[in-house]
Amino acid sequence: MSIVVMKFGGTSVADADNIRAAARRAIRTQNKGHRVVMVVSAMGKTTDKLEALAYEVSRGKQPPKREWDQLMVTGEQVTISLMAMALEGLGASAISFTAAQIGMVTDERHTKARIKRIAADRIHEQLDAGKIVIIAGFQGVTEAGHATTLGRGGSNVTLVAIAAAIDADVCENYTDVDGVYTTDPRLVPTARKIKTISYDEMLELASLGANVLHNRAVEFAKKYNVPIHVRSSLNNRKGTMIVPKTESMERIAVSGAALKDKIARISLKRVPDRPGVAARIFHKMATHNVVVDDIIQTISPHKTAVIAFTVDLVDLPEARNVCDDLARSLKCQVMYEDHMAKVSVVGVGMRIHTGVAERMFAALAKAKINIENITTSEIKISCLVNQSQGVKALRAVHDVFELGGKRRATKPKKKKTRRKKK
Amino acid sequence: MSIVVMKFGGTSVADADNIRAAARRAIRTQNKGHRVVMVVSAMGKTTDKLEALAYEVSRGKQPPKREWDQLMVTGEQVTISLMAMALEGLGASAISFTAAQIGMVTDERHTKARIKRIAADRIHEQLDAGKIVIIAGFQGVTEAGHATTLGRGGSNVTLVAIAAAIDADVCENYTDVDGVYTTDPRLVPTARKIKTISYDEMLELASLGANVLHNRAVEFAKKYNVPIHVRSSLNNRKGTMIVPKTESMERIAVSGAALKDKIARISLKRVPDRPGVAARIFHKMATHNVVVDDIIQTISPHKTAVIAFTVDLVDLPEARNVCDDLARSLKCQVMYEDHMAKVSVVGVGMRIHTGVAERMFAALAKAKINIENITTSEIKISCLVNQSQGVKALRAVHDVFELGGKRRATKPKKKKTRRKKK
Repeated sequence: MSIVVMKFGGTSVADADNIRAAARRAIRTQNKGHRVVMVVSAMGKTTDKLEALAYEVSRGKQPPKREWDQLMVTGEQVTISLMAMALEGLGASAISFTAAQIGMVTDERHTKARIKRIAADRIHEQLDAGKIVIIAGFQGVTEAGHATTLGRGGSNVTLVAIAAAIDADVCENYTDVDGVYTTDPRLVPTARKIKTISYDEMLELASLGANVLHNRAVEFAKKYNVPIHVRSSLNNRKGTMIVPKTESMERIAVSGAALKDKIARISLKRVPDRPGVAARIFHKMATHNVVVDDIIQTISPHKTAVIAFTVDLVDLPEARNVCDDLARSLKCQVMYEDHMAKVSVVGVGMRIHTGVAERMFAALAKAKINIENITTSEIKISCLVNQSQGVKALRAVHDVFELGGKRRATKPKKKKTRRKKK
Repeated sequence: MSIVVMKFGGTSVADADNIRAAARRAIRTQNKGHRVVMVVSAMGKTTDKLEALAYEVSRGKQPPKREWDQLMVTGEQVTISLMAMALEGLGASAISFTAAQIGMVTDERHTKARIKRIAADRIHEQLDAGKIVIIAGFQGVTEAGHATTLGRGGSNVTLVAIAAAIDADVCENYTDVDGVYTTDPRLVPTARKIKTISYDEMLELASLGANVLHNRAVEFAKKYNVPIHVRSSLNNRKGTMIVPKTESMERIAVSGAALKDKIARISLKRVPDRPGVAARIFHKMATHNVVVDDIIQTISPHKTAVIAFTVDLVDLPEARNVCDDLARSLKCQVMYEDHMAKVSVVGVGMRIHTGVAERMFAALAKAKINIENITTSEIKISCLVNQSQGVKALRAVHDVFELGGKRRATKPKKKKTRRKKK
């Protein structure tokens, strides 16, 4: 008997009807002979409402993180018990567990805790008794019994962690989209659902703005080798399987393309080219909580360097303060460009296929899009472009790699050139 | 340094403003040099909303009690964390605890669990650290870690249990009324707030329909000798102290009067007067979950008895089924009278004062109210009257014992007569 862990996000449990639909789906899965564990999020806008209340009672002060978590975990607790009632109402046998009850122990870092261990025995015990086990996503408990939450994408982290702990055969992540697409279908109408994608590709796509599954969950899944099936709670169609890399995947150079907008580029010019300068710059940024994305350093004449990097547009004012200071003390120039966008292609096949970069650049050139920066990883190529040309650039690269049409293996060409990132 | 346990009911924490007002009150108490523990209920209509959701997902089936409790405890958990945030926002240091976190261990009887023990050390530890400790009312946790609720009046049970466990000097029960009144002010405009009342009187009044404090909480307070101050969260006036009986209380024969309406009387006539018959009748009622109130048995001619008792009007249909069966098998007559009301007077002074019953009956006679039944306890006299005359009867007895005016000791008269109850 295989074990299936099914996770239902906020929109999939938004009201009583949705909860009952999810319950029926779990029962169908159980009726097929599987053992079923459900991981559920807070209902629809519950978390938003709790947040609003928290700020209202705190009157402008930052609520203490311990109490913030104590409040937030109630959202999922409401859903688990309602889900158990729905299942029992439909004739199934069910039991719900909070993180504290299931022994989902985390460290003490409130609002972004990391899971340390899960008492898998308690889950197996209930599965052995024929029950559908429902577990509150997003939450944990410290050794001392304080409530914690797992941060963004936390429910998916729970999904994967539970699956790993009980050695589940598959994770099913039910959401309001059909699966992972070659790119955002709202921006590129020809975008196509991907049947199978590797953890690494998914990691790159998630960090590029594909909001289906948070990176922490994918990293966890990769670490424990848990396949994730991302699918819609509104239909029975197969979604996208996120799995370890396979050989057949590598026959395709590019699996998906993504656009990230609202980013800013900061360029420090005439930076003294001596050891420790880059470290000093990025240490400063980190202490001011500015998340730095792609970094490029090149050498200019006269033993000076150009160091450029991107930040989220919202972080630009803070980054500007830091960099103005730095420029003064390093006696270098600094340039800020807002309203940039980054278009990227991702594919594990890039490791063995050549010519991917060349093809991407040619497509952008043909569309008359100027490339401001290029960064690459083993399985990704990103180009910084002007924000006004972002969607056009995305469509151009999505098109050139035939992601929207019937998928074809990219013809092998010469090994592509790469610049080193970070 | 004395310990004060302050409890705030649902209306006193109904929204952010109310929560902040309660927080300010706790801080003022702390500033006076007290150690402060707060027990809070779910916000306003939260419990009603959760109940509605539970029935909606269950579609007519009765939700399992374990999951019911798992759902309901979230209500108080929201309030405790918001209260902690409000306190911290106002500059105090605070920590919130669920029943599970504070080790409020109960038995396994979901929806009406009984407290077994409380980990007082954890509360003292936080009080020692200068914190205001906030505890979720109404809830408990079993040895195995399942969430439980304490049933009706549960938050007040928590209040008293916590106070007993940590040896508090006083319990303050903040609510939307000013205190305990000589009778319901909505029915009798001259009703007066009582300054001090004994546990026993409060027990009789509560069971007669005074909704300020549930009997279980009063019983608990009596058992552990914890004084309770019932007062309003809307002002700073002193409310009513519920305390052990004192000699000065006994100088007054009658402390309060109460009306309970929507009751029905069932009379079994020509019941065979032999041992075991009464037991059989009331065993039958109990197995059908009909709560029987006052019972009167009298002997008629021909070795038969009359057994009469009252039930809540809502239980009449069920009681009727049981009694029709019983009447057939016992070959006796049965009579049902709906729309009855019970007017009662309560006072620990009755134990030593005489003439109370006589005075009550005279007042009812003067008001042309027929008494259908009389039952008494050590500190209570109740008369069953027609429901249409209930309020009139209440006013008559409230008046005759001068409960509304300036309180005077009842003049000693001859020892009153009593019938035996149950």
